[in-house]
Amino acid sequence: MRAVLQRVKGATVHVDGKLVSKIGPGIVALIGISTEDTVAEIVPLANKILNTKLWNENQQATQILVPPQYEPESSPTANEDPPSSTTSLAASNGEAPETTNARAEQVWGGKPWKRSVVELGGEVLCVSQFTLFARTVKGTKPDFHRAMGGDSAKVIYEALLKKLGDGYAHDRIKDGAFGEMMDVSLTNDGPVTILLDTAEKK
Amino acid sequence: MRAVLQRVKGATVHVDGKLVSKIGPGIVALIGISTEDTVAEIVPLANKILNTKLWNENQQATQILVPPQYEPESSPTANEDPPSSTTSLAASNGEAPETTNARAEQVWGGKPWKRSVVELGGEVLCVSQFTLFARTVKGTKPDFHRAMGGDSAKVIYEALLKKLGDGYAHDRIKDGAFGEMMDVSLTNDGPVTILLDTAEKK
Repeated sequence: MRAVLQRVKGATVHVDGKLVSKIGPGIVALIGISTEDTVAEIVPLANKILNTKLWNENQQATQILVPPQYEPESSPTANEDPPSSTTSLAASNGEAPETTNARAEQVWGGKPWKRSVVELGGEVLCVSQFTLFARTVKGTKPDFHRAMGGDSAKVIYEALLKKLGDGYAHDRIKDGAFGEMMDVSLTNDGPVTILLDTAEKK
Repeated sequence: MRAVLQRVKGATVHVDGKLVSKIGPGIVALIGISTEDTVAEIVPLANKILNTKLWNENQQATQILVPPQYEPESSPTANEDPPSSTTSLAASNGEAPETTNARAEQVWGGKPWKRSVVELGGEVLCVSQFTLFARTVKGTKPDFHRAMGGDSAKVIYEALLKKLGDGYAHDRIKDGAFGEMMDVSLTNDGPVTILLDTAEKK
């Protein structure tokens, strides 16, 4: 199995324009399953997703400024602010070094690579992504022969979701819409993008 | 070199809340450079980015509905619509199969994996991402020893940008902010995410 982990300030999944999932600070995990994979890959992959240290030692999910489109729906301003509101606010501060440093301190304070998503108190949005096993070394058309087909892949994918929930908290693990055409929107924080492959040797 | 290609409807890069780059439909390419890489990797990687067929045979960049936050600044509504406007509009159509199929036809009409970003008439946003060479198989803290350091990596990264521009059009190739803390926002269309690695054998 492969996973692309993106450290995000927030993310959403829409299908046919309808919101199906939303998270605040945490990880968007694109999940690819190959024809050679079995349920044996689930535990090590779930552990890597939950335990890999992507945040700074003193960061907490509640400290991270969430772009308005990813705010929880209970927030009264979540659907009223234009997406550029945060931008405008920060941009209006100009180039003043104090402001910049203060923000950098808030975001980057403490040693990096010290806290996992669990330690951060963040969320995980999993999205199935069969294209991670695309073979592209020959020609220009991706070859998907190594990607496991829908029904078999879904069994393994859903077992991974359950294992993530068991290892952390079921209400912190969100899902896209397996096999559907999705719009996956996110704000990658850094950016920080980590590639996991259970076939890689220690 | 490694690249994570995401097929997007649009994307932005902000640094300290300030917009530094924006694209419409095309590719966000996260670029990782290892200590073993040389300029020899640039041509094959640039060719893969420009020529890999990620869109359907009849798709054009101008047909793809761009989320408002990624619209060009010349558009009068670009910064006025809340991020949920497209969602609300589509959601109000309910579950009517005609509407859903019409949209699917618009998005997915024709055979898939037929058009490259060049054939689509799309844009490419490159963002340097040293974490793509993170080693994660041992322990929980990513090990970045295989990632090439800043100054040397920047030379190769900028040569890649130039090669992409030479191979397509310089005004269609956008950049993030090398080495800066960025917010990389995007809407992945599908999602479609492709992993490229120049060390992979044919």
